[in-house]
Amino acid sequence: MGEALGDFGAVPGKAAPAVQPGPLRARDTSRDGLRNRIEVALLTGLRPVWQFVNRSPALARLCNRVIVNNAVLKVPTRPLALSTGAPYTSWPSLTDHSYFSRYLPPRAGADLPPLDDVAALFRPGADGPRQSPRSTLLFPCFAQWFTDGFMMTDDADRRRTTTNHQIDLGQLYGLRLEVTEALRRRSEQPGQKGRLKSEMVGGEEWAPRLYDAEGRRIPEFAAVPMPLRLPDGMPAERRAGLFAFGGNRANTTPFTAALNTLFLREHNRLCAVLERAWPDWDDARVFETARNINIAQLIRIVVEEYVNHISPYWFNLLADPTVCYKACWNRQNWIPVEFNLLYRWHSLVPERVSWAGRVQPIADMRLDNRLLLQGGLGAAFDEASRTKAWRIGLFNTADFLLPAEQASIQQGRDNQLAGYNDYRAAMGYPRVTRFEQISGDPRVVDGLRRVYGDVDRIEFFVGLLAEDAPPRAGVPGLIGRMVAADAFSHALTNPLLAPAVFNERTFSPQGMQSIRATWRLQHLLDRNAPGSGRASMEQDGAAA
Amino acid sequence: MGEALGDFGAVPGKAAPAVQPGPLRARDTSRDGLRNRIEVALLTGLRPVWQFVNRSPALARLCNRVIVNNAVLKVPTRPLALSTGAPYTSWPSLTDHSYFSRYLPPRAGADLPPLDDVAALFRPGADGPRQSPRSTLLFPCFAQWFTDGFMMTDDADRRRTTTNHQIDLGQLYGLRLEVTEALRRRSEQPGQKGRLKSEMVGGEEWAPRLYDAEGRRIPEFAAVPMPLRLPDGMPAERRAGLFAFGGNRANTTPFTAALNTLFLREHNRLCAVLERAWPDWDDARVFETARNINIAQLIRIVVEEYVNHISPYWFNLLADPTVCYKACWNRQNWIPVEFNLLYRWHSLVPERVSWAGRVQPIADMRLDNRLLLQGGLGAAFDEASRTKAWRIGLFNTADFLLPAEQASIQQGRDNQLAGYNDYRAAMGYPRVTRFEQISGDPRVVDGLRRVYGDVDRIEFFVGLLAEDAPPRAGVPGLIGRMVAADAFSHALTNPLLAPAVFNERTFSPQGMQSIRATWRLQHLLDRNAPGSGRASMEQDGAAA
Repeated sequence: MGEALGDFGAVPGKAAPAVQPGPLRARDTSRDGLRNRIEVALLTGLRPVWQFVNRSPALARLCNRVIVNNAVLKVPTRPLALSTGAPYTSWPSLTDHSYFSRYLPPRAGADLPPLDDVAALFRPGADGPRQSPRSTLLFPCFAQWFTDGFMMTDDADRRRTTTNHQIDLGQLYGLRLEVTEALRRRSEQPGQKGRLKSEMVGGEEWAPRLYDAEGRRIPEFAAVPMPLRLPDGMPAERRAGLFAFGGNRANTTPFTAALNTLFLREHNRLCAVLERAWPDWDDARVFETARNINIAQLIRIVVEEYVNHISPYWFNLLADPTVCYKACWNRQNWIPVEFNLLYRWHSLVPERVSWAGRVQPIADMRLDNRLLLQGGLGAAFDEASRTKAWRIGLFNTADFLLPAEQASIQQGRDNQLAGYNDYRAAMGYPRVTRFEQISGDPRVVDGLRRVYGDVDRIEFFVGLLAEDAPPRAGVPGLIGRMVAADAFSHALTNPLLAPAVFNERTFSPQGMQSIRATWRLQHLLDRNAPGSGRASMEQDGAAA
Repeated sequence: MGEALGDFGAVPGKAAPAVQPGPLRARDTSRDGLRNRIEVALLTGLRPVWQFVNRSPALARLCNRVIVNNAVLKVPTRPLALSTGAPYTSWPSLTDHSYFSRYLPPRAGADLPPLDDVAALFRPGADGPRQSPRSTLLFPCFAQWFTDGFMMTDDADRRRTTTNHQIDLGQLYGLRLEVTEALRRRSEQPGQKGRLKSEMVGGEEWAPRLYDAEGRRIPEFAAVPMPLRLPDGMPAERRAGLFAFGGNRANTTPFTAALNTLFLREHNRLCAVLERAWPDWDDARVFETARNINIAQLIRIVVEEYVNHISPYWFNLLADPTVCYKACWNRQNWIPVEFNLLYRWHSLVPERVSWAGRVQPIADMRLDNRLLLQGGLGAAFDEASRTKAWRIGLFNTADFLLPAEQASIQQGRDNQLAGYNDYRAAMGYPRVTRFEQISGDPRVVDGLRRVYGDVDRIEFFVGLLAEDAPPRAGVPGLIGRMVAADAFSHALTNPLLAPAVFNERTFSPQGMQSIRATWRLQHLLDRNAPGSGRASMEQDGAAA
């Protein structure tokens, strides 16, 4: 299919704007803060300087160290004094990781507008949704799949979480040992050692199915979590397309399933490499070493492809683990509730995608892997890389995701989060005093004023998404700051990257070689679905 | 009872040496290492200099920072690459804290002498045991009680542990929420808020009993762990003396029970203080804040009384949390199996103690709190502070503890620990080449030579205890180094001492005041058993 079919971000039937509109008038930048403005000017300007730095490895590593440390130290560092477990500091609040940590204490009895009025700020206006000028659908798909690995709210108590607070490819391997065991082939036969269970369909490798053709759970996967919110009445044929995956959200869309499949194939490919190099290794060692490598490669892709896509800087950030070896922010991971919440980028997801030559509503693809199995892994990446994302922000969420926005606002209230302005202050931005300092878009300014009346009443989640995204940035400013800080401080502190661990003893020389050769999803796709497609979070020509 | 009764370290019937013998000839110090020798000379000499430093707060804090950092960086820092779970690095070995971490990889197939031959190295010779020149019985009692809070081997699989790797007074509060809940009074009545359950006996406050007068478990304490290795046939009267304590080893001796009781009383005393200052706080907040303070006070006592008793330095080490705020060794706690093992200081424990005017075999006091309940808390501390400990080392373990030594040797073998010399090298000591470099005591040298033949065959646990303790030190050199490193790096990194946490918001002004006033057990005893006794790990006059 041609490029002409690729642009399905806008809702058919509504005119997609020919030119992506920026904010209609200039935002009032008087409360951006002097230091922030200088940093932005230096990092988003001076392109030739940064291009030179990017080409000079030693200089790039030095700049990376300074920029990453500066980014992380913009926010309070762990251990934080509070969790969502109690409004004061206690031994459980310092140690019970089944609660989220939190940056700011709860704000009891806040006077907030009705939920429906706030939720209405997310619905596109009469002129329809806006498209992202830079991102493809693969960007929100990757964000969803990646964060599903370590951000999870406990449905029974929304102050709590089931995460283990690590980037560990739990989507693929499971969060608990029994799940991992159920997914492993467990064979000492050469050619089988270390492998995750898989099956060949249409000449391609896929995870095994969780249900049989009659829609019954397959007993060997009893420990594998149920796909989240699986409807009772789902037809057996569709149910039979669901994969046995470690994470309960990896089947959510064919794109999350495609990403999980890509990492499954990479795991099994790495096993083959290790098995050849180390014929005396047993199944367990091949498995564990392949997992080590797979996780390290994911972290590298996260920083060097995904974070660089989000970042508006000309400097290319590097996944250099040594940056945190002596850093005072290298502390035990613990996902803050604010981080969990600010990562809900629903407005990026378009209503439709072209696939297999037809325009398909994304809402209809939930828990349905049939298109993926028919079209193949390469096609899924190719379509996601050709489809434009929508623009992140208010007044831009597709209908089928509006309930998700409402749930996010409610979760902020359930956790009594402090206001948007309080978080600005905690993260090194001056408090805003006028709505026009948040956005230059009159609709946003008017909407916020109508619903909140006073800038100090604006809720965290809403304020985050109300901000204009800076030019070339994947997300608005405060989200960008908080995402960067938590991403670096949670990813680079992974135990696999620690000084005593990040070496050939842990990964093998073959593993270190593979990690060195992997910093884009395209590398994995070329290895595991050769010649079949493109994996890009960035629209053609947007990098320039 | 008088001082004349206090010296019950030696076994009656054998002549206790009138003068405590040092090593009979000088140890060969040629493999101590130049840097180590310089450090020892500086820190154990220059007494007037250190006395001046001790009196100068700013200078003392600076020296403390340098000395603590130097001590911790003598050993490999966390995260370590290996755990006892597997001989290679894997995701579970980096994250599953139900295994111990480990400093050195397993040494498979080591050629080791028969266990009985090694165990015989612990039995006192014909001239009987030797007494410590410095330590009282309170020293090993505190060591036992303190480490029982965070060092515990899983009896079902001795590679594993049930610890949560934190100093959290789990002996008192329990390691799990259900245990804590069972031990709390849970009352919103003034005068009751935040309290641990307790009862008055003989005018003193004690923990409630775990068994009734007929020896039946009291149902409200169903969640409280069984005292470890409780004999089935224990008479009801003795069983009825056991306390409902959070830790399963806190009842092990009346001295561990006394320490737990002291911290229980302090908890309830702190609740009264907090309740007066903060009448609007609920039960939970009073409880949690008192626990916060109690834990911080324990850590202060550990460093400033206990570690200083072990240390041969003239400089008084300080529990200054800021030392680790930017330290590269401030990483998630994880008890190494070697730390767990090197802390078995059984030879310090004398065979008998004088109590209530009679000489009592300590072996008979196991799981028996009757003497404690009769004599009162002050008397228990007083007797333990008057009784001399035995000298730590080989050929000095009381009969009733020889099985414990044998179990420790076996645990080292079960975990395939590397040899004593390998650990010397890993911790910054040159490998020894002659037995005479380990000890100046001919019996030790001959014993090691007879059993091992070659210095490289000596096991970790045996080598540790074979070393001569330096003058004024509580323990031998390699133990001292490893204990200091792990003690500081596990204690000062407690989340309660972190930059965002160690403040009046967490502890209240009253709590901070109490922490400032608490650096010896004597302070707690004076508050909670006034006028009734002495708490000293150091023999009279030994400090000089």
